[in-house]
Amino acid sequence: MESAKDVAHATGDAIAKTASYITSSILELSKGVFTPLSRSSSSPLAIDPGSAPGIEQYLKKEDPSIPILITVIDYGEFGHQTHNFSDISAALAHPKPDKPHVRWINIDGLRPSTIDIVGKHFGLHTLSAEDVINTYQRPKIEAFDTHLFVIARQLQLADEKLKNEQISFFLFSDTLISFQEVSGDVFDPVRKRLENKTGRFRTYKADYLFYALLDSIVDHLFPILEAYGTALEELEIEILQDPSTLSQQKLFSMKRDLSLQRRVLWPIREVVDQLYREDSDLIHPDLKTFYRDIQDHTMQVIDLLETYRDTASGLSDLYQSSVGNKMNEIMKVLTIMASFFIPITFLAGVYGMNFEYIPELGWKYSYPVFWGLCLSATAGLAVFFWRKGWIGPNS
Amino acid sequence: MESAKDVAHATGDAIAKTASYITSSILELSKGVFTPLSRSSSSPLAIDPGSAPGIEQYLKKEDPSIPILITVIDYGEFGHQTHNFSDISAALAHPKPDKPHVRWINIDGLRPSTIDIVGKHFGLHTLSAEDVINTYQRPKIEAFDTHLFVIARQLQLADEKLKNEQISFFLFSDTLISFQEVSGDVFDPVRKRLENKTGRFRTYKADYLFYALLDSIVDHLFPILEAYGTALEELEIEILQDPSTLSQQKLFSMKRDLSLQRRVLWPIREVVDQLYREDSDLIHPDLKTFYRDIQDHTMQVIDLLETYRDTASGLSDLYQSSVGNKMNEIMKVLTIMASFFIPITFLAGVYGMNFEYIPELGWKYSYPVFWGLCLSATAGLAVFFWRKGWIGPNS
Amino acid sequence: MESAKDVAHATGDAIAKTASYITSSILELSKGVFTPLSRSSSSPLAIDPGSAPGIEQYLKKEDPSIPILITVIDYGEFGHQTHNFSDISAALAHPKPDKPHVRWINIDGLRPSTIDIVGKHFGLHTLSAEDVINTYQRPKIEAFDTHLFVIARQLQLADEKLKNEQISFFLFSDTLISFQEVSGDVFDPVRKRLENKTGRFRTYKADYLFYALLDSIVDHLFPILEAYGTALEELEIEILQDPSTLSQQKLFSMKRDLSLQRRVLWPIREVVDQLYREDSDLIHPDLKTFYRDIQDHTMQVIDLLETYRDTASGLSDLYQSSVGNKMNEIMKVLTIMASFFIPITFLAGVYGMNFEYIPELGWKYSYPVFWGLCLSATAGLAVFFWRKGWIGPNS
Amino acid sequence: MESAKDVAHATGDAIAKTASYITSSILELSKGVFTPLSRSSSSPLAIDPGSAPGIEQYLKKEDPSIPILITVIDYGEFGHQTHNFSDISAALAHPKPDKPHVRWINIDGLRPSTIDIVGKHFGLHTLSAEDVINTYQRPKIEAFDTHLFVIARQLQLADEKLKNEQISFFLFSDTLISFQEVSGDVFDPVRKRLENKTGRFRTYKADYLFYALLDSIVDHLFPILEAYGTALEELEIEILQDPSTLSQQKLFSMKRDLSLQRRVLWPIREVVDQLYREDSDLIHPDLKTFYRDIQDHTMQVIDLLETYRDTASGLSDLYQSSVGNKMNEIMKVLTIMASFFIPITFLAGVYGMNFEYIPELGWKYSYPVFWGLCLSATAGLAVFFWRKGWIGPNS
Amino acid sequence: MESAKDVAHATGDAIAKTASYITSSILELSKGVFTPLSRSSSSPLAIDPGSAPGIEQYLKKEDPSIPILITVIDYGEFGHQTHNFSDISAALAHPKPDKPHVRWINIDGLRPSTIDIVGKHFGLHTLSAEDVINTYQRPKIEAFDTHLFVIARQLQLADEKLKNEQISFFLFSDTLISFQEVSGDVFDPVRKRLENKTGRFRTYKADYLFYALLDSIVDHLFPILEAYGTALEELEIEILQDPSTLSQQKLFSMKRDLSLQRRVLWPIREVVDQLYREDSDLIHPDLKTFYRDIQDHTMQVIDLLETYRDTASGLSDLYQSSVGNKMNEIMKVLTIMASFFIPITFLAGVYGMNFEYIPELGWKYSYPVFWGLCLSATAGLAVFFWRKGWIGPNS
Repeated sequence: MESAKDVAHATGDAIAKTASYITSSILELSKGVFTPLSRSSSSPLAIDPGSAPGIEQYLKKEDPSIPILITVIDYGEFGHQTHNFSDISAALAHPKPDKPHVRWINIDGLRPSTIDIVGKHFGLHTLSAEDVINTYQRPKIEAFDTHLFVIARQLQLADEKLKNEQISFFLFSDTLISFQEVSGDVFDPVRKRLENKTGRFRTYKADYLFYALLDSIVDHLFPILEAYGTALEELEIEILQDPSTLSQQKLFSMKRDLSLQRRVLWPIREVVDQLYREDSDLIHPDLKTFYRDIQDHTMQVIDLLETYRDTASGLSDLYQSSVGNKMNEIMKVLTIMASFFIPITFLAGVYGMNFEYIPELGWKYSYPVFWGLCLSATAGLAVFFWRKGWIGPNS
Repeated sequence: MESAKDVAHATGDAIAKTASYITSSILELSKGVFTPLSRSSSSPLAIDPGSAPGIEQYLKKEDPSIPILITVIDYGEFGHQTHNFSDISAALAHPKPDKPHVRWINIDGLRPSTIDIVGKHFGLHTLSAEDVINTYQRPKIEAFDTHLFVIARQLQLADEKLKNEQISFFLFSDTLISFQEVSGDVFDPVRKRLENKTGRFRTYKADYLFYALLDSIVDHLFPILEAYGTALEELEIEILQDPSTLSQQKLFSMKRDLSLQRRVLWPIREVVDQLYREDSDLIHPDLKTFYRDIQDHTMQVIDLLETYRDTASGLSDLYQSSVGNKMNEIMKVLTIMASFFIPITFLAGVYGMNFEYIPELGWKYSYPVFWGLCLSATAGLAVFFWRKGWIGPNS
Repeated sequence: MESAKDVAHATGDAIAKTASYITSSILELSKGVFTPLSRSSSSPLAIDPGSAPGIEQYLKKEDPSIPILITVIDYGEFGHQTHNFSDISAALAHPKPDKPHVRWINIDGLRPSTIDIVGKHFGLHTLSAEDVINTYQRPKIEAFDTHLFVIARQLQLADEKLKNEQISFFLFSDTLISFQEVSGDVFDPVRKRLENKTGRFRTYKADYLFYALLDSIVDHLFPILEAYGTALEELEIEILQDPSTLSQQKLFSMKRDLSLQRRVLWPIREVVDQLYREDSDLIHPDLKTFYRDIQDHTMQVIDLLETYRDTASGLSDLYQSSVGNKMNEIMKVLTIMASFFIPITFLAGVYGMNFEYIPELGWKYSYPVFWGLCLSATAGLAVFFWRKGWIGPNS
Repeated sequence: MESAKDVAHATGDAIAKTASYITSSILELSKGVFTPLSRSSSSPLAIDPGSAPGIEQYLKKEDPSIPILITVIDYGEFGHQTHNFSDISAALAHPKPDKPHVRWINIDGLRPSTIDIVGKHFGLHTLSAEDVINTYQRPKIEAFDTHLFVIARQLQLADEKLKNEQISFFLFSDTLISFQEVSGDVFDPVRKRLENKTGRFRTYKADYLFYALLDSIVDHLFPILEAYGTALEELEIEILQDPSTLSQQKLFSMKRDLSLQRRVLWPIREVVDQLYREDSDLIHPDLKTFYRDIQDHTMQVIDLLETYRDTASGLSDLYQSSVGNKMNEIMKVLTIMASFFIPITFLAGVYGMNFEYIPELGWKYSYPVFWGLCLSATAGLAVFFWRKGWIGPNS
Repeated sequence: MESAKDVAHATGDAIAKTASYITSSILELSKGVFTPLSRSSSSPLAIDPGSAPGIEQYLKKEDPSIPILITVIDYGEFGHQTHNFSDISAALAHPKPDKPHVRWINIDGLRPSTIDIVGKHFGLHTLSAEDVINTYQRPKIEAFDTHLFVIARQLQLADEKLKNEQISFFLFSDTLISFQEVSGDVFDPVRKRLENKTGRFRTYKADYLFYALLDSIVDHLFPILEAYGTALEELEIEILQDPSTLSQQKLFSMKRDLSLQRRVLWPIREVVDQLYREDSDLIHPDLKTFYRDIQDHTMQVIDLLETYRDTASGLSDLYQSSVGNKMNEIMKVLTIMASFFIPITFLAGVYGMNFEYIPELGWKYSYPVFWGLCLSATAGLAVFFWRKGWIGPNS
């Protein structure tokens, strides 16, 4: 019997490797498709399979070197305040303004102890806290009595690199908590809008803030897909003009990547669908239209993605066909060359024989007649090939 | 950290490029399938992802050079009136005739300010107004308290070109507002029918007008598909007679295009389905049968499209097979030529050797015997090839 | 801007061409699969897209040369009567027998005016009347207050030809109206049964007559599919024995045709399903079992069709494999021939050189040794090829 | 117009041929996959399409040569009795034992008159009776007021042959009637259990007997699938070691056969599902668990079948790849042979020329230098090919 | 007629062979993909198809050599106790501690008599007991009045081998019974947690224990999939660098294996889904969140699996393309070599002819001119090939 420790060790590795596989396969893109991608987060904490569920196991593996940044934004009728903290207790203890308002706590960097303190303060489920740390989750939504727990993924193009990051949201009535793996996100436009006096942020509560963030994530998918579109166009030109094994490799990377993206996008779509249908007190009925808008955008992205997949599949056929045609061309040249010279080489061989009695050898016009024969044979074959369409303008 | 501005810029480009990708890929058709297509509208206004939703952001980017034409048609028991305006306020202020009637406001050209004024006048949702401007929307339907919001797409064949245009409808009880990207549409037959005294336009309200316009859009899809049918037939003949890499390229364009069309048609079908099932006060129960008729036509178009896709897929196999057969033919010629001459060339070489003691050299009948051998070998191989079916009537 | 007239003209052509495409693609079958097919009906009347819906537009295009035959069959407890008319008004005015009975009005030939008169007499919807004329409809069912409107398609094998005809039924409580494109149908056995004293025709009303006709249509699909089965078997033998480009073409026609049939059969199945589930007063509960029987038969036909599609797809693979093997055989012959003679031809060439000092030239046994070398080389290669399995009993 | 008789004749043939197609295509298996199959039943009675539904039409075609065997088994608290009859009236008139019991009437051989008498005695629907005779039915279940009508198919391996037989069941509260095409079935173990004093047969009524028979049918599918599994394994070895066109043919037969089986198994699964969900008085709630057990077994069989289909599809790819590799090997040999000898043959040709002034001809070391050149060229090419990996240990 | 005994025998073999097929096909993996697998259990007991359902039949086939180990773990507020037994009666008679607690009875080794005794003691259904013995079951869940019956499968990587074992659970309110094929499982971490004072095991009853075991099984799937991921990456490198038939075989094994895994994982997912939705008293509502967590993990595993399947399918295309390119390269070398030397070999042949009157023979500069011609021809062809891209830097 294998010791539990060994299995546990192997599994811990496995989860880390599985995560890195996804990373490496997207990194693979750098081989051919377009610009590479870096995984922004440190590798997730590996926990023994079979160990107790919940955040508790991770506390022992606390890595104090993970940088952490807590931003607390309060806004409401009174105005707008931003405070940065590096200690979660200080952040939670920060006094709220008097008047009705919304508080957004954004935490960059996933340190188990921080998540645990937040979890206990807000009464989050221990499995939710665990999901925040395990950054290889599928996008999903879970409804609790006091809050919604939503996992999404943000893809960003930055410095020619693609970042794939998990973002976890806890949506309370007047508080939104978001956890990000590292600093740097797609929310700056939303932060700017918070500072301005835009009406809807004042009218609605945390639900509108959450909408704005989700909308920002989905809208940022368009540039990513555009990069794929461009890469596909370039690949098409390459395959038509000069198909090489490299083209096929790029196509393979492309297809694998689109397949990966598809598996990321469909659950996001499900999340948005559920949000739209969710009959929760946490989301104001007025905002249904806004969530439907995100739903529409997600469907547009998926449609585009499916179209790209079809195109990639068609390019694969086109490639096969290009290679086949190249082969045909090569064989045609060989066949034409061989067919032209093989018969007349034989003829030359015949008159190179040393038989004593070869009557033609002594005839005076043998040599020109020989050339005549050669030319006739060649001309005959040329006509034959012409008719087959192997030589001439359309070959 | 990347600046929000850069991302915003990149994304703005992305949306424009994505839209132009669809355009260019249909333009691609000109390479082989049939006649090209021009995108009628100017490129959509690019807005930073993450910016506030709604029409407001677009007002700042107002482009006064976009030509705009507003047509107000009033019809009813009193008769029929058509007025053209270039200013939306004037159009909205235009007095209605006394008797019960229907008003159709058609606006060609998408200027944010115009849409905003219409939106405020009729109480349209700010996201609906935004969707009117962003012309890369999927066809969809949204029900509001006072009106239905429907996005459709009209495809037109004109001057051997295919135009792909978004049309947005707002259907009120006695008013229909339609937004088109540019002038020129498929509604002229409907306009003529408005002028005549056709009963149903008088009996029903804006719902019948809306039906007539939608019906016109769907009916105009038939000529488009017919062009694809003809192109497929030509491609079939080409592939059977003279398959070239170009044929494969055409097939690739064709398949991609059918795939694109499919992604456009299925949401249109969903819209019509919803309209048929919608239990709205805005659509008279009598008209259900009419909407079901559009539904039937849409299904016919989709059926045809799916049949074309199957056919294109079959043509792809046929092409592969044609290329394989061509290769076989080439190889057969090479093999036959080489096999006929290689053995006898060796024989000629043998008697071209300069050994002092080659008894055959001095024999008198060596030369005719040599030819005899050559002919026998050739005849033997000919029989062999005949039996294999490589030469002869069935080869 | 294109003129509405041009578009209308183009579209009218389009519908006609689309219909003829379906025809021609089935005609295509004559190229290889089995016997051809003729479209029995004249091409449908082309109407401008965007024109008013309903039968009215078609009245202007009345073609009095279309032959028309109206048969009125009355049966019931009193017995059985058949009357033929060429004028619809006379037929409708024909007095009904006194006792409870069922009337079946069958109209061969689609003349707009006739349909219009029937429509007005029985209170049919104008769109239903239009669908009767436009013979490219998908099979469908529509329930109205007083009647059911059903469109089906009958496929017939006659004189080695396949006829594809639209049949429209209007099922009232005690009247059934059927419209056929031309004379000649699959209903003769039913007519004979009407003449005899079969109990169920007397027990039930028009619903049983309608069942009998629909059953007859579905039962007539079996011979059609049998023809495909036989053609597939022949194609399999051909591909195994002598695969040619023609086989691939036949396979292509076959697949396209099966794809077309599939698109016809599925909607028929939906119609039968709906009839079975329909909770209409028009269909007696006792007859549910009979309609379920049709449903079963339709599923059997579809099952057979899907099996044929799988088989055709497998034959396609088999064909590719056959071609690949033929190529392998050709290349093997070439390689064996070339390999046997190329080395010894070189050797002969060596001793054909004119160098003054070639010691072997003067040796007495050079010539037999030369032949010995040639034979050894050939034997060595023969063993090599034998081991590779390229020559010998298993090659 | 074609005469109804001709069509009827053609169709009658068609049904017979269709049935025989299925037979022949499984017979096809003998070509390669494993052992053949014989269709146990005589060909079904062909009836004109369009003729009246129900058993009546078949009575005219009664074939008294069909052997018939009726077995009536009574069991219950009193014990167990088996009686054989050749006349159905005698069997039905056979008196029942006094105490509560279950009667199982099994009829081997489908004679219309027999079925008709049974039908009238038990009040079966005329269409059910017809389905019993038409042995090409899909497995299905129909619920009537007093009984359930179930059609299943039993596949048996016997004497290296596969028998595919339709079995029809009529399940009453305390009577089960089963119709088989010929004698010989998979029910012997059940008959033995009836003789023994197994409790459940006594506790429950005909529903448990029916369960036992159905269970026996499904359990007998495992050996069939095992034969396919073994055939697939052999095919894999064959394709890896010595792929021939025959392998591809076997694979084709295999795929077609698995496709056929699939179309048989899915409806069986539906039948069992319905039985499990059926809320009928005829099936005791206690037995739900037993029917669910059959359901599980059916799913296992289908899972296995789908796995085999995937495997067959993978083998097809493997075959293509094997053929491609064989071709590569052949071409490599040709290329190597040709490349080695073509250049040096040219060189030999050069010094075989008869020009008067060729300085090398008179040089003393020309001949060894020539051989040196030949060896160098060959060695150079050998290195080139080695580097390409075409010769050497890994080639 | 075949004897029932023969069929029974054949079927018994069949089930054993079917089971061993699955084994062997995974063993097949050792051929190429990664490390092999051993089936831990002895082959299942073969029972005649058609024999009575339930555990009874198996009692006759009791194999006393199967090692059996029964572990009874009691835990609760009082603490924690573990007792090992080899006799089931002793285990069941073992007294329970006084205070509220949970008992977990784990039985390693499937001996019919043991299962029968447990079944009678706890009132298990006879079919459930049979399913425990037949270890080829699909994962499933069945709800009974007093307990839930769940079949799962645990896959373990141990000593570079993959073990595929069926585990059956009977979940009562405060008792959990688990049956394993052999000793050695993935539950050691759970056992350790039982010893510690973890709160939730004390708070909830057997439902939490069951959750912990199921969670452990699913978490152990990650390392398995990671092994496949690594194997796929290696295969990709191999195919890109040096594709051989072996690569294709590995790919075939891989695809078949992923297909098998898929058929195992989907039913597991269904089981977890049902557990999550099950409205049973046996599962505390608080634990829903925990079961949903397992559900999420299962979906992640399936997502990964599907991604691998896509990747394997892409690798198949890549392989085909690699082989095609290799062929192209081979043919290119042949064509270039042949084309360079065939024409000039002919020329050499011409001047090797023995005609008396060949004027060039006597010219002084013939020989250098000849070489000049040869070089020119070669250079011309080189330019031609260069332009085609067959030679040079990009070839």
